[in-house]
Formats: sequence, C-alpha cells, structure tokens
Amino acid sequence: MIRIKYHTPGTAPATLVAKANPNAGPPTLTLIQYDSETIFEGTFDTFEELMERFDPAKVNWINVEGLSDVGLLRKFSERFHIHPLALEDVLNTSQRPKVEHYTDHYFIVSEMIYQDEQSRVTVEQLSVFLGDCYVITLQEEAEHDVFDPVRARLRGGRGYARKMKADYLTYALLDATVDQFFPILESVGESIEEIEDELLSKPTKETLKSLYQSKRLLLQLRRAAWPQREIFNTLIRDDTGLIGKETQVFLRDCYDHSTQIIDILESFRDLAAGLMDVYLSSLGLRTNEIMRVLTVISAVFIPLTFIAGVYGMNFDRADPWNMPELSWPYGYPLCLAFMATVATSMLILFKRKRWL
Amino acid sequence: MIRIKYHTPGTAPATLVAKANPNAGPPTLTLIQYDSETIFEGTFDTFEELMERFDPAKVNWINVEGLSDVGLLRKFSERFHIHPLALEDVLNTSQRPKVEHYTDHYFIVSEMIYQDEQSRVTVEQLSVFLGDCYVITLQEEAEHDVFDPVRARLRGGRGYARKMKADYLTYALLDATVDQFFPILESVGESIEEIEDELLSKPTKETLKSLYQSKRLLLQLRRAAWPQREIFNTLIRDDTGLIGKETQVFLRDCYDHSTQIIDILESFRDLAAGLMDVYLSSLGLRTNEIMRVLTVISAVFIPLTFIAGVYGMNFDRADPWNMPELSWPYGYPLCLAFMATVATSMLILFKRKRWL
Amino acid sequence: MIRIKYHTPGTAPATLVAKANPNAGPPTLTLIQYDSETIFEGTFDTFEELMERFDPAKVNWINVEGLSDVGLLRKFSERFHIHPLALEDVLNTSQRPKVEHYTDHYFIVSEMIYQDEQSRVTVEQLSVFLGDCYVITLQEEAEHDVFDPVRARLRGGRGYARKMKADYLTYALLDATVDQFFPILESVGESIEEIEDELLSKPTKETLKSLYQSKRLLLQLRRAAWPQREIFNTLIRDDTGLIGKETQVFLRDCYDHSTQIIDILESFRDLAAGLMDVYLSSLGLRTNEIMRVLTVISAVFIPLTFIAGVYGMNFDRADPWNMPELSWPYGYPLCLAFMATVATSMLILFKRKRWL
Amino acid sequence: MIRIKYHTPGTAPATLVAKANPNAGPPTLTLIQYDSETIFEGTFDTFEELMERFDPAKVNWINVEGLSDVGLLRKFSERFHIHPLALEDVLNTSQRPKVEHYTDHYFIVSEMIYQDEQSRVTVEQLSVFLGDCYVITLQEEAEHDVFDPVRARLRGGRGYARKMKADYLTYALLDATVDQFFPILESVGESIEEIEDELLSKPTKETLKSLYQSKRLLLQLRRAAWPQREIFNTLIRDDTGLIGKETQVFLRDCYDHSTQIIDILESFRDLAAGLMDVYLSSLGLRTNEIMRVLTVISAVFIPLTFIAGVYGMNFDRADPWNMPELSWPYGYPLCLAFMATVATSMLILFKRKRWL
Amino acid sequence: MIRIKYHTPGTAPATLVAKANPNAGPPTLTLIQYDSETIFEGTFDTFEELMERFDPAKVNWINVEGLSDVGLLRKFSERFHIHPLALEDVLNTSQRPKVEHYTDHYFIVSEMIYQDEQSRVTVEQLSVFLGDCYVITLQEEAEHDVFDPVRARLRGGRGYARKMKADYLTYALLDATVDQFFPILESVGESIEEIEDELLSKPTKETLKSLYQSKRLLLQLRRAAWPQREIFNTLIRDDTGLIGKETQVFLRDCYDHSTQIIDILESFRDLAAGLMDVYLSSLGLRTNEIMRVLTVISAVFIPLTFIAGVYGMNFDRADPWNMPELSWPYGYPLCLAFMATVATSMLILFKRKRWL
Repeated sequence: MIRIKYHTPGTAPATLVAKANPNAGPPTLTLIQYDSETIFEGTFDTFEELMERFDPAKVNWINVEGLSDVGLLRKFSERFHIHPLALEDVLNTSQRPKVEHYTDHYFIVSEMIYQDEQSRVTVEQLSVFLGDCYVITLQEEAEHDVFDPVRARLRGGRGYARKMKADYLTYALLDATVDQFFPILESVGESIEEIEDELLSKPTKETLKSLYQSKRLLLQLRRAAWPQREIFNTLIRDDTGLIGKETQVFLRDCYDHSTQIIDILESFRDLAAGLMDVYLSSLGLRTNEIMRVLTVISAVFIPLTFIAGVYGMNFDRADPWNMPELSWPYGYPLCLAFMATVATSMLILFKRKRWL
Repeated sequence: MIRIKYHTPGTAPATLVAKANPNAGPPTLTLIQYDSETIFEGTFDTFEELMERFDPAKVNWINVEGLSDVGLLRKFSERFHIHPLALEDVLNTSQRPKVEHYTDHYFIVSEMIYQDEQSRVTVEQLSVFLGDCYVITLQEEAEHDVFDPVRARLRGGRGYARKMKADYLTYALLDATVDQFFPILESVGESIEEIEDELLSKPTKETLKSLYQSKRLLLQLRRAAWPQREIFNTLIRDDTGLIGKETQVFLRDCYDHSTQIIDILESFRDLAAGLMDVYLSSLGLRTNEIMRVLTVISAVFIPLTFIAGVYGMNFDRADPWNMPELSWPYGYPLCLAFMATVATSMLILFKRKRWL
Repeated sequence: MIRIKYHTPGTAPATLVAKANPNAGPPTLTLIQYDSETIFEGTFDTFEELMERFDPAKVNWINVEGLSDVGLLRKFSERFHIHPLALEDVLNTSQRPKVEHYTDHYFIVSEMIYQDEQSRVTVEQLSVFLGDCYVITLQEEAEHDVFDPVRARLRGGRGYARKMKADYLTYALLDATVDQFFPILESVGESIEEIEDELLSKPTKETLKSLYQSKRLLLQLRRAAWPQREIFNTLIRDDTGLIGKETQVFLRDCYDHSTQIIDILESFRDLAAGLMDVYLSSLGLRTNEIMRVLTVISAVFIPLTFIAGVYGMNFDRADPWNMPELSWPYGYPLCLAFMATVATSMLILFKRKRWL
Repeated sequence: MIRIKYHTPGTAPATLVAKANPNAGPPTLTLIQYDSETIFEGTFDTFEELMERFDPAKVNWINVEGLSDVGLLRKFSERFHIHPLALEDVLNTSQRPKVEHYTDHYFIVSEMIYQDEQSRVTVEQLSVFLGDCYVITLQEEAEHDVFDPVRARLRGGRGYARKMKADYLTYALLDATVDQFFPILESVGESIEEIEDELLSKPTKETLKSLYQSKRLLLQLRRAAWPQREIFNTLIRDDTGLIGKETQVFLRDCYDHSTQIIDILESFRDLAAGLMDVYLSSLGLRTNEIMRVLTVISAVFIPLTFIAGVYGMNFDRADPWNMPELSWPYGYPLCLAFMATVATSMLILFKRKRWL
Repeated sequence: MIRIKYHTPGTAPATLVAKANPNAGPPTLTLIQYDSETIFEGTFDTFEELMERFDPAKVNWINVEGLSDVGLLRKFSERFHIHPLALEDVLNTSQRPKVEHYTDHYFIVSEMIYQDEQSRVTVEQLSVFLGDCYVITLQEEAEHDVFDPVRARLRGGRGYARKMKADYLTYALLDATVDQFFPILESVGESIEEIEDELLSKPTKETLKSLYQSKRLLLQLRRAAWPQREIFNTLIRDDTGLIGKETQVFLRDCYDHSTQIIDILESFRDLAAGLMDVYLSSLGLRTNEIMRVLTVISAVFIPLTFIAGVYGMNFDRADPWNMPELSWPYGYPLCLAFMATVATSMLILFKRKRWL
C-alpha cells in the first residue's frame, strides 16, 4: 500500500545499508555517451572501467539498475562529490519526490509509476544526479524502466535529443516518468465509470472493494504527483546555470502536465467520494424496496391468517352464542369474501401510499 | 466524462500527431481582416493563399476549424514562430486552460463549453495565438462555435469591435466562451431544484442518478472555470504591451464574470452535496415509516393469531381441566372481546409512542 | 434560489438592456442635497431637471429606484463619466458585490438583504457611485429600501451625518445594508435551535425540509457576506483621496461587523451540517427501536403460535403414539404453562441483551 | 447558543444604548493603583471621585463591572479620548475578539470564558483600554470575573507584577482569560471519552444529544480562540511603544498557549466528528444484530408453523388420498422429527453464514 | 488521549510547579563531555558537582531525567540564563513542539513518541537548550529514552558525531526522535490493512473500535508531526550563528523526513476516513442481505400458512357451500400442489428480482 522504508531508528545519519532484494544480483552499470555527432553505448562491470570511458566533453548518462552494492555507491559519492545524506536517500527507496541543489549538481528523487504486464500499478524510486556533463540515474530494480523511448531517440539522433546537454536529457527522463501517469489515469477513469454503472444497477461487496481500491490508488498517485510538480517548479526557477533557458521551456511543459495530472486526480477523487455516497444511497434504496415487499406481503396475509385462525377455533357449538358463523349456510363463501375484501383494501391502501 | 488525451508515453516532446476524428475532412481556413473602415471575410484552401492576403496593417483573425492537418500547423508554426510545445498542446485537446507568453505573442488555451441542440453540454478546446496584428484561433471541430455574435458585431461595425486592435478581438472571443457558462449554470440550477422537489416527495434511483450527473457536470465546469479565471488574471497584469490599457478594463470585466461563475459553481456544489444528505435522510425516513407499518400490523395481529391458535388446539375436553373455555356458554364472544381488548391496547400503546 | 441574470451570450460587451419587471413604472429620481447647515429633498421627473439643482459645493445624494429606463442611465453615464461596463453591471442585477475604482469615482456593487413583511429574505442589488461631491445609488425596485434611518439622520442633522462629505454618506448607506444581516442571522439562529429540538424528539419530513432551507439561506447569505467584506477592505486601504481618514475609521468598523457576520455564518453552517448528522442518527435510532419492538413481539409469539399449531394438528389419536398429550388429564394447563415458560425465557433473554 | 447582539439596523453609528440587564444595578467602579512600592485599592461612586485619585505616575487599573450607565461611559470617552465606535463595541457585547490601535491607547475586546458554579460554560465580553499609565477594563456583569489571582499577586507584590507597567498588567489580565480555556478543554476531553464509551456499548438519544452539545461547545470555544490568538499576534508585533520588549516575551507565551488551545480544539473537533461516524456505525451494527435475531427466529419457526398448519387441515379423511399421514401409526412422532430436521438444517445454515 | 497539563488558571506566569509523578525519585543528572579526541561520561548528584566538571572548550551534553526537583531547574535557569517562561514550559509537559530563540541559546520543545514494551505508543516531552558549547536535555521520565544509539555513536567516535559541535548533537537527538515515527507509522499501516480485510469480511464492534483507535492515534501523531517540522524549518533558516552551515544540511534532511512523515500521516488519515465509509456500506450491505433472506422466507411461507389456515377452519360441512374442497377425493393432494405452485411462483419472482 504505502511503502515505508526507513533505517533503524538511531542509526547514524548517512549510514548506507542496502535495502534491496537480497536475491538481486549485482547492479548493472550502463553508459550512454553522446554529443550531436557521436553516440556510444556500453555496459561495464566495474566503476573503474566506466570512469575510464567517462568524457567531460560529452553528455554522459550513467544508469545504475539495482542498489545492492553499497561499495559502488560510495565510489560514485567520492568521484561526483555526492553528499552522504543524498546517498542515503537513494537507498531508502520510499523517499518523497524532491529536488536538492548541491554545489555542482542537482539531486532529484522522483517516482517511476508504471503498469506492469498484469497491469498492476508499480512504483519504483528513481534517483537522478545532474551535473554539467553527466546524468546519473539510479533505479531500484533492473527489470523494467520507462526510458527505452528516450534511448531510442538518442540513438536515432532525431529531434532535440542529441543536440542538447545533460539538462535536456534530465528533462527527457523526467518527462518520461510524468507521461506514465496518463495511461494509468485513463484506466482509473474507466474503472470509476464501470463502478458507477454497477452501483446503480446492483451494488455488491465486490463493487465496494474495487471502489475502495480505486480510492487507494488515487491516493498513491496523488502522493507522487504533488511533490513531482514541485520538482519542476524548482527546476524552472533554477539560477545555478545547470539548466539552460531552452530546457526551462520544456520543463514548463512538464510542469503544465503535472498540473493537469493533479487536476484530473482531484476530479477523480471527487467522483470517487461521490460514488461512495451513491453506494450508500443505492443500498438504502434497496433496503427500502425489500422492506416494502415484506411489509406488503405481511400486511395482506397476517390479518387473513388471523381470520382463518378464528374459524379454526373449537368452541362448543352446542351453545348458540359460540361461533354461529360456522353453521351459516353460506358461512364459508362469506368468510372467503370477507378475506378478499380485507386483502383488497390493504392493497388499495398501499397503492395509495405508492408502495406498489 | 473527463477527457484524457495524451501522446504515447515516451514520445519525443513536441511530437505532432493529429488526434482528430479520422472521418473529419480537411480543416477550414477562414480569415476576417478589418480595421475601423474596411472588413474582408474569406475562406482559403491553402496556407499560402491565406498568407498572401495577410496584412500586418490590419487586424487579421485567422480561424482554423479541425486539427487533422499537421502539415498546415507546421506552416503556422514557422510563419508565426510558434513553439513546437505550444503546437503540441493545440493537438492534445485536453489541455488545462492556460496562458503562456512567447517572445512576440500570447498562447492561450481555453475551453468552449456550450450546449448542443440536444442540450447536452459539450466541451471543445480553443487555442488562441495573439500577436500584435493577428489572432489565430484553432478549434477542434468544424461544426459549431460560439463566435457568430462576434462576427456579426465585426461586420456591423457597431460598438468598439472594429475600432480596436487584436487584443480587443481576443477579449471578445474569450468573453464569448465565458458567457456560455451562464445558460448552462441556469439549467444546472433548475435541475437541482427539480431534484430537490423529487427527493422530498418520492426519491427513486432516477433521482439519485440525475443528482450524481449534476455533480459530475459541476465538477467538469469547475475544472474549466478556475484556470480560465487565471487566464484573465494573467492578461490583466500584462506588461508586454500586447494588451492595451483599454482592453484590460474589459478583461477585468471578464475576470469578474469568471469569479461570479466560480462563486455560483461552488454554491451549486454545496447545494448538491447537501441534497445527497437529504436523499439519505429521506430514504431513512421512508424505511422508518415502512418499518412502523409492518411493526404495528405484526404487533396487533400476531398475538391475536396466537390466541386463535390456542383455541384451535385439540386437547381432550373429556377432562374438565382441558380447555374448559371452549364449553363456556359465551366462550366465543368473550374470546372475541378479549382479542379486541388486546388489539386496542396495542394500538393505544403505539398511538402513545406516536407511531401512528 | 441563486439568481443568475446575464446578457444573451455573444452580446456586445457593455450592451445595456433593461432587465427590470416590464410592469414596473418609470424609475423614481430623488435628490437629497445637504451641507452642515442646509438640506434639500426633492423628487424629479427628468434627469435634466435634477441636474439643474445639482450643486458641487454640497453633498448630492441621487437615488434612482427602478432600472427600466436605459436612456436615463445613459445620461448619467455621460454626465458622470461612468464606464459602459459599470452601467452594464448596474443592469445585470445578479452581480457579485465588488468595488472598482474609475478615474474620478468609485463604483460599488452591494446587496441589500432584508426581510420583507412576510419575513421572507429578499435580495436586491444596490449600485453606488461615489464621487467627490455626489453619491448615486441605483436600486432594482422602488418599493422598499433600507435607507430610511439614514434619511432621518440627515434630516435631523444629528451626529456626524450632516457635517461630513459624500464618503461618509456612502459609509452610512453601506453600514445600513450590513446591519440588515443581524436580524436575519438571529432568526436563522432561532430556526436552527427549533430544528434541533424537533430532530431529537420527532424528526419528520418537514424538519428535513426546513433544515435544508436554512442551509440554503446560509449559503445565500455567505455569497453576499464574503465579497462585501472585501469591499470594506478595499475602501479602508483607499489612497485615491475619495475617502477621508475619518471615514476610514468608520469603514473599519463595518469591516469588523462583516467579519463578525462571516464568523456567525460559518458557525451556523457548522451547526447545520452537524444537525444533518444528528438527523440521520436520530432516524437510525428510531429504526432501531422500531425493529426491536417488532423483533421482541415476533420472537415471543411466533414460537407460541407454533406450539398452538402443533396441538391443533389432527393426527389420529387412536394410535397411542399420536399426540398422547391431548388426552392427558392436565394437558391443556401444562401446555399453557410451557408456553408461559417459553415466553418468559425469551423476555429474560431480551432483558439481558438490553433490548427492553 | 451564539449570542447576536446588535443595534437596531439603521441606528446612527456610534449610538450608545445600554444592552445590559435592566434589573442590573449601577456599575461598580474600582481602582487599583500601584507602583513597585505602594498599592491602593478603592471603590468609587462617581467618575469624578475616581479621577481625583487617578495618578499618571503610577499604574491605574480602573475596573468597571456592569454596562448599564451610558453616561459614565461617555465620561470615560471624553477623559481618555475613546472613539465613539470603540464605546459602541463595548456595549454591543457580542463582538468578535479584536485589538485596535487608537492614537494613545490600545482597545482590546476579549472574551472571558469560564465555568460557573453549575459548571456551565459562560461567556462574558471583556473590553480593555491600555494607555501608558492606565488599564481600563469593562465587564458585562458584576458577579464574577477571573481576575482575583491577578489582584492577589498585585497585593502580594510577588513576582514581576508590581515592578512592571500597565502593559504587563494587560498581559496578566489577558493571560488569566486564556488560562480559563484549559479546565474547560479538560472537561470537554473527559466528556468526549465518556461519550465514546457509551457509543460503543449502548448508544441512546442522550448520547447523541451530549455529543451534539460537545460539538456546539467546541464551536463556541473556537470562535473565541482563533481571534484571541490574533490579538496576541498583533500585540507582539507592536511598534507603538505602548508595549515594552519585556512584556512582549510574556505575550509570546500567551500566543503559544493560544496556539496550543486551538490545536487541542481542532483535535477535539476531529474526534467529535469521528464519534458521529462511530455513532452511525454503531447504530447500523445494532440494527444488523436485531435483524439477524428476527430473521433467524422467523426462518426457523415460520416453516414449522406452516407444517403444523398443514396437519391441522380438515380434509375428509374418508378418502384415502386425503391426509393419510394423520392415520399413520407413528405419524405424530414422524412429523415432530421432520420439524426438528427442518429447524436444525436452518440453524446449521445460519451458523455457516455466521449469523449466529 | 490528549494530554492537557496546565497551571491553575490565574497562577502567576513563570510559576514553577513540579507536575511529575510524586512517587518519582530525584532526577538523574548525567553529563557526556567530548571533543574529537576525548570523551567523558558521568552521573552527578548535585548541580554544583556537575558544574565543576563543565568545560566550555568541549561539547557538554547535560541530560536531566525526571522533572520533580524545581530547585535544580532554578539553578539551571540562573547558570544558563534560561527565561522563567521557558522553564515553565519545561514543567508543563503538554506543550506544543516549538523552537524559541533567546539571547545566547535556542529553546526547543519536542516530543519523544515511541512504542513501549507492550507496543503501546507513549508520548514524552523533550526539552532541549542548545548553547554554543552545551546541550541540555530535560525528559519527563527516567525509564526510557530514544538516545542510546546517539550515545553509542559518541562513544564509538565513528562518523561525524564526535568531530562536530553542540549543534550537530542537537540535530542527532532530534533526528532520533523523528526516526521513532517510522516504526509506529508502519504498525499503523499494518493495522489499517487488517481492519480493511475485516471490514469487507465480517465487520464487528471490535473492528469499529480499532478503526476509531487508529484514527485517534493518527490524530495524536499529527499533532506532534506538524509543529516538529516547523522546528526544523526554523533551525534551517537560523542566522544566529548557533547552528553551523554543515549541520543545516543535516537538518534539511530531518525536515524532509518530517515532510515524508506528514505525507504518510495524511494518506493514512484519508485511508482511515475511507474505511469508515466502507464500514457503513458494509453494514448496509449485510442488513440488506439479512432483510432479503427474511423477506424471501416470509413471502414464501406466510401465504402457504394462510392456505393451511383456511382448510383448518371448522365451517359446518353439512351445508354444501361450506368448504366443499375438504370432501373432494383428491382435495389434499390438490391443496399441496396448489401450495407448491404458490411457493414456486414466489421463488421465481424473487429470482427475477435477483434477490436470490
């Protein structure tokens, strides 16, 4: 539901402990290095090999998938002057999205939210370090990320991608994470509409459950969306020189998308809250209807049964005062007629009360 | 319900893909060109023909209906220095209303909300580019827009319309979109009053449904109204020179109208929320009443039926202890009298409890 | 409920159309002209006659009741430099209270809320133009206004009224509209207390209805009170010279009253919202109680009726296994005793469950 | 509930009308005059006698209890330059707590909230005028105030009290009013806990009533607490010289206490709101349980009664097809066994559904 | 629930009264004194002994556990220039967390929230005085604190702990209190998930109770978390020189953690609020289901019982009009068949209504 990862209370600040899945293999280290003319892609086994290839004249995108190797992170920390607290945030992968400025780089914590193959919504922390000539991305898991289209654009050399600097690459990566919200929102929207239809026709426990789950998912998305917008707001106002004017226009676009996402999320929340009321009302309406049927049937038959009961009594008919009706020649038809009259009156009464 | 149009996640930013209805024909290109003395109106087949006619000394209102031709939009982009991201927003027609300032023009995204012939509320994105001598409007669909009165005023040459610049035309167009809210609000108000009457007389599933739909419509209007007010707020504070002092007074009027719309919307939301409570209470009250009828009938007749049952038992009356009442001379009338007493007592009791 | 008056969408801005009741006669034009020594009161037929009497050396209070004569308003507009948009707001009498500053005057839209003879709450728009030597007030209807005490004070020459300028007169008029809230609030408070008592004793549909109506009235008052406070806030901070220092102290008092009104309104809203919950709970409690009565009666008599039914069966008593109880010498008393035992046990059980 | 005292709408501003209880005697005038060495206490009959004793070199605390003598107030107004509007606020004793700065003094309206002997919460307006050498306090009623401990400290000469100026005395008085909130909050907290226990065991109409009353009391406290904090906030930022640096540290403490009070109030509100939900749920749960009992009893006995009814029918057993069971040797025991089977099956079924 | 500790209303400000448990022994006085090379730890009996050891050249952490000795606190107050109001706040241990700056030190009130052995959440006030060379911590109770890991780090001399000043020690202590929130939040999250499961399967009074308790706990945590974040916000912006640049980076980390805690708390609140709705709906659904069973059984058997009742009547069959059916050769089977038909029709009807 809500992931809470934290170091044991009392641990020294900036203590680095790998929280990753113990079964996870060693992290994968990949480098995409490009300028407007050339592009190099490679996977490395060690940090040292990677650093040999590192070239400050180009844009270096170093991608680390898997956070199990604390030693490796320490090397990054030394080489790129990463503050131990930032490194700690990379490892405690349930951080709130945020952006922090350190002397020569930005540290950005964002959330990749995407639907996996079973269309379950998955959250994975993405840590980004943006320096003047490099972008370091650290992902929790190796299996999946949302950056393949960015890689394809870099390889293809189309659009702005290759002509611009590390700041634009960072934008492209963040934009890719923001774009993931839309298909999820779309499917939430669809499921809310389905729930709405069900609620008004036949509300069941399953409908209640899926409504509650939609609300929970919206809550989760909200927790990611609001701080993510703050990130863009901060980056747009950047005055450190790390982010160029041209890229800021693109980041403003991201900011607008974030605002739109938040807007839709809030609308969905309102709709989902409204549906809970509809659910309760719908149940009340059904209870009402059921009660009405019960009451009508009871009100019609209970008096009749009573009459039948009376003429089933065994008073001694020797005495002329005792149950003389039983001896009337047309007693039985009269009795039936009386019963019919009572029943009909009742039904007319209920008809008037609009209970039928 | 809530339109979510987005490019496939990972698409390069500023990628232009026509989202329009594939059956839609080519876009219509119309130009209205005027100054205080002359006015020209024409429809063009190609961008080039249009541009030949374009005259920077006059106000040029270029209206594009239908967004299926990406090539055409690219030509606009080149000629009027429109940023690719703005163009992307034109095509992804579920943008949040906003205004952005680019070097020599404003880019405004607004929403035309109007009731069509079947009085359904329809939303259509309107994109406006305001330069010093031109206004470019881009609409999603060709069938309907809300600008005919503006056109009529331009043709008639009455009022301010023809004497003023492109900024005033933009104001007139935006004002026309804002004015559309009022008749919609009026009909929402009426339907809320109808629902209220129904709720207090006979709440049904249909009432619940139309209440929920009103709430949803209000949500949709709200999502358009709040950012629209922000647009006017930004334009009033304009310091780029694109919007004249005189037009700002008119925009302030639009801002006031937007505020009034938001005010009414929030009041309606409150009323609609209150009605949901009334609905639940009304249901509760009915259930109550139904239960009361059932209980009174049961409480009166069940004891009577029991008494009748007792005297229907077949104990052997040979023994004097067994059911001597049955042999009493006035057993039956006494029994009936007893039953009447029981029933009357019950009714008096319920009367006292105010259940009748 | 919520008045929505608007010009037909697309109408040119600042179009003047009289919205007034067509049966309404021509507007009444009255002038009260005074300085600390003299006072003149008169009613005029035409604008021209009025203007002849107008004297910039004194305070001129021109009161127009009824808005049916657009021509008259145009004359005001020309003489006092009133912006066409302001004039439009005067006519579209469902404006949000506001204050706007034009070159040489303030334009204030306020709401007169008062209880008429049938103690129904009535809302009427009041438009005020405050210049250096004049106050023009425009009211929707001629029948009723709340300014008689102000007139009396002017005539009497008591207090500050006559010694001060047009700004103080404006304050006095606005203060009179604000003061009207208090008796209305008082009666709302009383009706909320009544509803509360009813809710806890015997909640009916009527209670629900009057609760909902109180909520709606509060909503309406709120819509007037909040922007009205904003008016005072703006006037207090006036730096145009139209409002003197001394009058600002009085306006601060109005501001305080507005704050107090809003405070009370919000408290009432909270109370009314709480009452809706009380209503639902009260209903739930009654349903509960009714159910309990039904259940106790059913639970006591249904088993007894079953026993009576058993001994009413007609099994052939020739066989010694068939219903031997019926032939027992004390069968009937034993049967009755058994029934009494069953009933008593049930009652004890319910007593223990605290259902009785 | 919520006190609304106001002058008749239309009354001239700053009109002074005594609102006090007509039976109230004349106001009490007391003076406590002190410096670090001497202290004088006295009660005076007339304003003039009091003024003779007034000594600007010392701190003069003039306390007026009872507001029935408008003439007296006018004398204060003249002597201490009190603005008529301030005087009006003193008399209309349902003002919102506020602080206003006039040329040479502060005017503070606060609320004394205290529990009287019957531990009912009582609200009384306290008006304070703080000049450089005097503090004038005006109370609504003579019977009770919360300042006895302050008087005792002044007399005792302990602590800061005597060494400091009028500003510190004002602090001490306001602090005394703030401190009154805590015991009230404590008793509200206790009553909320009691209600909570009752709700979960046996919710009745009385519980509902006291819950609603707690909510109303919290609302009342809130209306006093929020503006009271504003008073301290204003006084802390004082730059008029009327309040010394040293006293500001003490006022900051008052501000903290006010914040704490608001904090607790908001928590209580949340708790009380939550309890209303618990109440509704608790009722629903009980209804549920009652229904289950009714349903189980009905479901077990109604079919049995039907069977008994069948064998009570009087079909002519001469025909072998008619009710042959009645003549079976073991018909009755078989019938009873069948009934037992039906009842047991029903009970098992309900057991499985967890209704038992 | 909510602790309200306050001095008796009217007590002189800055009156010091020990609120501690009267059975509590004398407070424990411990000193940890260190610089990067040496560390000294000791427990002292008197303030004077402690002060002899005090060394301004090193960092002195004085920890006082237990607040029963007012005399001791007075000595601290004199030696370290602690304002009497601050000392009062130390003793009234239900303060809102806050930070205040006095001439040469910060006074911080925080809350230690931790789970005790029985995993009950316990709140204890922690008061901290941070000067240039000392940190004084005052705790309510001696039994438990959350600082053992900090002590261990100081002893070990690892990490930054020993190299840095008193400001860093304060950070470390506050960080330790913040870290305590996470395990509590985790267990709240787990209990919310449990409640959710129960609600959808079998909602009972116990579930309701624990849901309400979770809400109350969240409320309590919230009251601590929000002001605690304010503390960090203030310390980060410190410009008094008491907090070094380097420590501010660490405090920013604390601020982030606080934000994350608040974020999670708000999400939990939303979830818990949603669960209350689920609870009500779940109950409604069950009531519905129970009612349906009751209605179906009643609707099937009540008419049948009536028919049986009719043929149990004792009309005199001598007359041919009276109950001829009873004498029909196949009367009984026909009657049973008719009953079966009625019952089957009813069941089919209910099946169609989807009540089965």
